[in-house]
Amino acid sequence: MRVLVSGAGGFIGSRLGDLLRARGCVGDRRIGALALADRRLADVAGGALVLEGDLASASVLHRIADFRPDVVFHLAAIPGGAAESDYALGRRVNLDATLALFERLANRDKPPVVVYASSIAVYGTDLPKVVTPETPLRPPLTYGAHKLACEILLADFSRRGLLDGRSIRLPGIVARPREPSGLASAFMSDLLHALRAGEQFTCPVSPQATGWWMSAPRCAENIVHAAAMEVPAADPARAWPMPVLRLSIAQVIETCATMFGDDRRDRVRFEPNEKLEAVFGRYPPLDDSAARALGLRDDGSPENLIRRATGMEQTQ
Amino acid sequence: MRVLVSGAGGFIGSRLGDLLRARGCVGDRRIGALALADRRLADVAGGALVLEGDLASASVLHRIADFRPDVVFHLAAIPGGAAESDYALGRRVNLDATLALFERLANRDKPPVVVYASSIAVYGTDLPKVVTPETPLRPPLTYGAHKLACEILLADFSRRGLLDGRSIRLPGIVARPREPSGLASAFMSDLLHALRAGEQFTCPVSPQATGWWMSAPRCAENIVHAAAMEVPAADPARAWPMPVLRLSIAQVIETCATMFGDDRRDRVRFEPNEKLEAVFGRYPPLDDSAARALGLRDDGSPENLIRRATGMEQTQ
Repeated sequence: MRVLVSGAGGFIGSRLGDLLRARGCVGDRRIGALALADRRLADVAGGALVLEGDLASASVLHRIADFRPDVVFHLAAIPGGAAESDYALGRRVNLDATLALFERLANRDKPPVVVYASSIAVYGTDLPKVVTPETPLRPPLTYGAHKLACEILLADFSRRGLLDGRSIRLPGIVARPREPSGLASAFMSDLLHALRAGEQFTCPVSPQATGWWMSAPRCAENIVHAAAMEVPAADPARAWPMPVLRLSIAQVIETCATMFGDDRRDRVRFEPNEKLEAVFGRYPPLDDSAARALGLRDDGSPENLIRRATGMEQTQ
Repeated sequence: MRVLVSGAGGFIGSRLGDLLRARGCVGDRRIGALALADRRLADVAGGALVLEGDLASASVLHRIADFRPDVVFHLAAIPGGAAESDYALGRRVNLDATLALFERLANRDKPPVVVYASSIAVYGTDLPKVVTPETPLRPPLTYGAHKLACEILLADFSRRGLLDGRSIRLPGIVARPREPSGLASAFMSDLLHALRAGEQFTCPVSPQATGWWMSAPRCAENIVHAAAMEVPAADPARAWPMPVLRLSIAQVIETCATMFGDDRRDRVRFEPNEKLEAVFGRYPPLDDSAARALGLRDDGSPENLIRRATGMEQTQ
């Protein structure tokens, strides 16, 4: 089978590319050709077709269509914070380029599988006591609004038999590299880096702030699984949250203290930002049973999460 | 205040234009200038600015921005059946032109009110026993998918303080003129015309098929009301179904028989089309209490609905 990854140079995309090459298959089907697309792609190991350029451009879309992928992992996106401050850029990539990609891939005779990296940013603030598949979706950022719009458009292409879409809502994935990412949730990763290294950290949300956490290796595994899993016909939305570990900042610090040293408990100073806390600090329990039933998985335990997130353990 | 109507040449748009001119106000604010936009506009009475042309074109968008409307009623759309068979046309008007209009109107200093004519086509088939604000939205046609995407985008523009959006989900509005409309639900209107005139009619859904009904005059009144009503801050989706009368085809025929003559009971032959029945014939009760609390209203009774729908009664 022929497999394409968009956003292949990104934090999750690069891990996904590595995982696909290491495994050589998606489910029980062998990968015959792999294409990696991104604006810039450095140090790509041999064997993959490299498609460098703007995903919204006609030339890249044309080269993607020429590649004729059977499975597409669409991860390319402008992150939440950056999309909020630059509306035009967010629209061009997160909405226009995504829809253009769907249209270009649409094929009635042989609908390609499209795994779309959506986001828990579709849910919104003021969530109910438990988030379920019936929870109304109220994206609190333009990023989430565009993700939700594209989930709906992908479900429509699937209904029409032109694509075989699967939208997977990514939670806070850790630990991203310590560099400006444009992600408003970057503090989750920065906290882990600081605790691992034993450094001081100023946390922009309170110890009670609860988030939905997943390690990058587990996320990549789930994304691959999403392409292979059997989608129930009775689920026309074709969108699922990834199963998550729901942890408070205090729990994360405590776990790190047991793993890295008791001094970690004193390393974190709190300067809660009300707006950030409202968006990223009040995630209730998530009913992710539908996703689990499809074989998607969380990290198993806070210790495993942190081990994987900080590169202490590589999973396959 | 300055008021713009898009789709002003259409079935509902033309009634809305007439109603706005007859009243001369929206809520308690006087209309100082009225602009009517559509691809073609025939026989517009004096006093209104006529903006003829393609809403997706830069020139029409520019003229709309120049008009500087305080209130916009955005009704222009490619109807469901037509949008399903011509994807590119549906996308251009129902998605692209709508988003372009939102972007062009966006104004942080003085966000215009935008009443967006959405549709019950956002809900989908396989509905629960009662449709509530928590019912997951699963549009069964591309038309509904685009309407839902634009509801989400409008809510996002409102959250950002750039527009004051209100999405109103229109049910089956009757009675449309007897001409090809591109609407898959046109049979609802055609049935009323035939019963009024005492003609034979072949109904493409069963007598048990239940729909959500509203007369065109009531619809126009609700749309005007939607611009004036106070929107609760705690309702970030800013989208409501219109309150409806839920009637079976048998109830509609029975009401017409009491109004127009007993012979009407024998005028209708049934040739149910499974697909049409699934989309338009299985509407359960609708919890429209949120819309009613905002002052939106149904037609009051099946008799009133049919009287207004067939032009026997003009309401103001």
